[in-house]
Amino acid sequence: MKKTFYLLLFAWVVVLILPQCQNAPQEKKAKYVFYFIGDGMGVNQVNGTEMYLAEKEGRIGLKPLNFTQFPVVNVATTYSRYNSVTCSAAAGTALATGSKTKNGTIGMDSLHKAPLYSVAVKAKNAGKKVGITTSVSVDHATPAAFYAHQPNRSMYYEIGTDLPKAGFDFYAGAGFLRPDNKKDSTAMNLFELYDREGYTLIRGMEEYANQSGEAAKIIFIQQEGSDQGSLPYAIDRKEGDLTLAQITENAIQFLTRNNDNGFFLMVEGGKIDWACHGNDAATVFTEVVDMSEAVQKALDFYNQHPDETLIVITADHETGGIVLGTGKYALNLQALQYQKLSKEELTKAIQDLGKAKGNKISWEDVKNLLSEKLGFWKEVQLSEEQEARLKKAYASTFSSKNAKMEKNLYAENSQLASEAIRILDAVAMVGWTSGGHSAGVVPVYAIGAGSQLFSGKLDNTDIPKKIAEAAGY
Amino acid sequence: MKKTFYLLLFAWVVVLILPQCQNAPQEKKAKYVFYFIGDGMGVNQVNGTEMYLAEKEGRIGLKPLNFTQFPVVNVATTYSRYNSVTCSAAAGTALATGSKTKNGTIGMDSLHKAPLYSVAVKAKNAGKKVGITTSVSVDHATPAAFYAHQPNRSMYYEIGTDLPKAGFDFYAGAGFLRPDNKKDSTAMNLFELYDREGYTLIRGMEEYANQSGEAAKIIFIQQEGSDQGSLPYAIDRKEGDLTLAQITENAIQFLTRNNDNGFFLMVEGGKIDWACHGNDAATVFTEVVDMSEAVQKALDFYNQHPDETLIVITADHETGGIVLGTGKYALNLQALQYQKLSKEELTKAIQDLGKAKGNKISWEDVKNLLSEKLGFWKEVQLSEEQEARLKKAYASTFSSKNAKMEKNLYAENSQLASEAIRILDAVAMVGWTSGGHSAGVVPVYAIGAGSQLFSGKLDNTDIPKKIAEAAGY
Repeated sequence: MKKTFYLLLFAWVVVLILPQCQNAPQEKKAKYVFYFIGDGMGVNQVNGTEMYLAEKEGRIGLKPLNFTQFPVVNVATTYSRYNSVTCSAAAGTALATGSKTKNGTIGMDSLHKAPLYSVAVKAKNAGKKVGITTSVSVDHATPAAFYAHQPNRSMYYEIGTDLPKAGFDFYAGAGFLRPDNKKDSTAMNLFELYDREGYTLIRGMEEYANQSGEAAKIIFIQQEGSDQGSLPYAIDRKEGDLTLAQITENAIQFLTRNNDNGFFLMVEGGKIDWACHGNDAATVFTEVVDMSEAVQKALDFYNQHPDETLIVITADHETGGIVLGTGKYALNLQALQYQKLSKEELTKAIQDLGKAKGNKISWEDVKNLLSEKLGFWKEVQLSEEQEARLKKAYASTFSSKNAKMEKNLYAENSQLASEAIRILDAVAMVGWTSGGHSAGVVPVYAIGAGSQLFSGKLDNTDIPKKIAEAAGY
Repeated sequence: MKKTFYLLLFAWVVVLILPQCQNAPQEKKAKYVFYFIGDGMGVNQVNGTEMYLAEKEGRIGLKPLNFTQFPVVNVATTYSRYNSVTCSAAAGTALATGSKTKNGTIGMDSLHKAPLYSVAVKAKNAGKKVGITTSVSVDHATPAAFYAHQPNRSMYYEIGTDLPKAGFDFYAGAGFLRPDNKKDSTAMNLFELYDREGYTLIRGMEEYANQSGEAAKIIFIQQEGSDQGSLPYAIDRKEGDLTLAQITENAIQFLTRNNDNGFFLMVEGGKIDWACHGNDAATVFTEVVDMSEAVQKALDFYNQHPDETLIVITADHETGGIVLGTGKYALNLQALQYQKLSKEELTKAIQDLGKAKGNKISWEDVKNLLSEKLGFWKEVQLSEEQEARLKKAYASTFSSKNAKMEKNLYAENSQLASEAIRILDAVAMVGWTSGGHSAGVVPVYAIGAGSQLFSGKLDNTDIPKKIAEAAGY
């Protein structure tokens, strides 16, 4: 009897108590890593988007994006090696490799003596499949920092030649800015090079459906004839246009095919930055929403593999010095909902109107256009001073065929389009400080395996190190 | 034998294994709570301070403040009940009570029908000693939101009458803005009221040393003859001036005296906001550093009671729309180190110069003053355009005895002082958007018992609720 009693007691302790007594079960490594980078997406680009979505619904507050509800919310600092305000190349290098470098540099140290290798290379060396994707060109600073090593971000051809050297499995974006080496006509065309290196070049979703099944490694870009520089802004999207969410979905599908070892996937929302350089708030907020739709593809995957998936969202720097409020204790973001297109497409619409009317455009024509495209004089009321400014911009825009354009880093816009967007953003009470970057902190969000590593004071260089730690690279 | 074996086995399990098997020991409640509120301290006010401190040391990067290194770093949204951009009263009410209200309101619902009670009241009801302290007047919006219930933040006398009703143990700040009821001469003077209600009114550190020992409840303000509205800016501090760190230290000493039940202490760095309203970057950054010195007093206490102390740092809103960068990919914050005084004190220095010279001020006199006080033409080089702007401001400042002043919410400054600070901030590449608030997110930092509650998406209304949860109120 006694023996039985002790045995039962022992069994009770071993079977019932001990299993509950383990410390929190050792967290699994992140077999699947998603690394989203919203280019130019400072804290207020995100907060502004959430407030804009709420105001669109007729209320004050926030309509939360999916990624802002991640269990870890943090901010990171972004200064580069020699500049308090970083460029995208140095910031991309920091986010990719964990090292600060000189502005302009892609994946090299600040003296341009040695390459710096990215967390994607570590993932590759650890046997993971790797994807590098973006909504802008594949050779642009942020994606390039993950695979290339060049002293200057403008060396697009040379950056392109580094792509097959890194040997990742899946690259995607709008296209390539310089497939031929203009300085050396004997140099191989990049697409030939990629073909020789075993990459299947796929253009557009239809080709993807037909050709991806056989491919060993993929370069996925837009359909022939599309802009090589970037996907269309979400606000300008037409049916059939490639989206960042589609790229993300294709990447997940390809990286998990016949692969039990896991993957590392970087996804850049590259045009948030472009819209910020143009100080175009409606286009910025729409672009942030668009990135959240790509994040949703990652979240869908996370929900199937919650113990082994890590999703990290951050940005390389803040662009434009956006401020939510211009003095009065209010915003009027709801006014932005009447903007139907980006500033660039508004410029085109104005130019098209000019062509259609042999450049004989009346003020009424302009009013009709701005009413249709921005809601001016219908939903959006303008002051006399604002209307006078528009009339002045109308006059100078149509004063000659070579009227001066307003330039920013990625676009040239007519004075009329620029003034109209400036006025709409002022009506919305959104302030802009410049057409460049600021040293504003950027947000960091994390969910899943190892996400707790992203708590506490963060610099951009910490992020790839923590990803490598979480994934066990 | 067998019996002994089983007994030993059982004892081994019970004595050696089970104690290690507890889950992480149940975290203690926060017996001691510090709640710091940097008024107007958005994320870039903090980031800018850290970058300024690094640039002062001749390097690019950050010199971290004590509180930014807390294990929890987060951001919070701040919109009020009816406005996307909050005022200090609604923001203070949100941070104190966990409810959004109408701008202008202190501790009442948005319809002004019912009082809202603060986390400090909950602490009091839970048997804790309570302190409410600030670097501005005790009746100002942020401290008031913790003890008062009035429909309008400007009702300073009425707010003052609510102070003894809350019955907290320790109040401190610069002074009181309206000790007498101007509308009703029969109403009791606030200091009489406080005396009747058992508060010992103590003015200045010397009186504190002599009188606090006997006091049951304390109201601690500046020495007789000091500004009732605020302590001097840290950048203007003279020997003997009361500091927020001293107030914090006194509060800790008083709240722990003969008290085993713990305390709740709110400390407001109130003049960060004032300097932001004035768009005066050097004064802002110096004020943030000054708040960190008050935080150090809390950290010293935390280090003695790490298991039972919670420190939370946040802000009520962002002020000024500060942007770190004005277009070029650089900052020049080091230039701010040559600013020796706030814009307000510069105005006084200019006025004093005018008085001393019978208002016959030469441009050379002005140059000497600006050189001494801001480093102009010595360490800080100006462009011709900037010098021309200063000359113009000099001319209009001394054009008549009643030259127009530049007003902001808390100060009136001479045109010359305003233009000089504007130029210095432009040299430093700090942008300002307005003299008002913005809807920019504010930082949240937490350390100690319950600090993990402050992870994940946060609104300002969540913060007092989480404090109450951490403290078990």
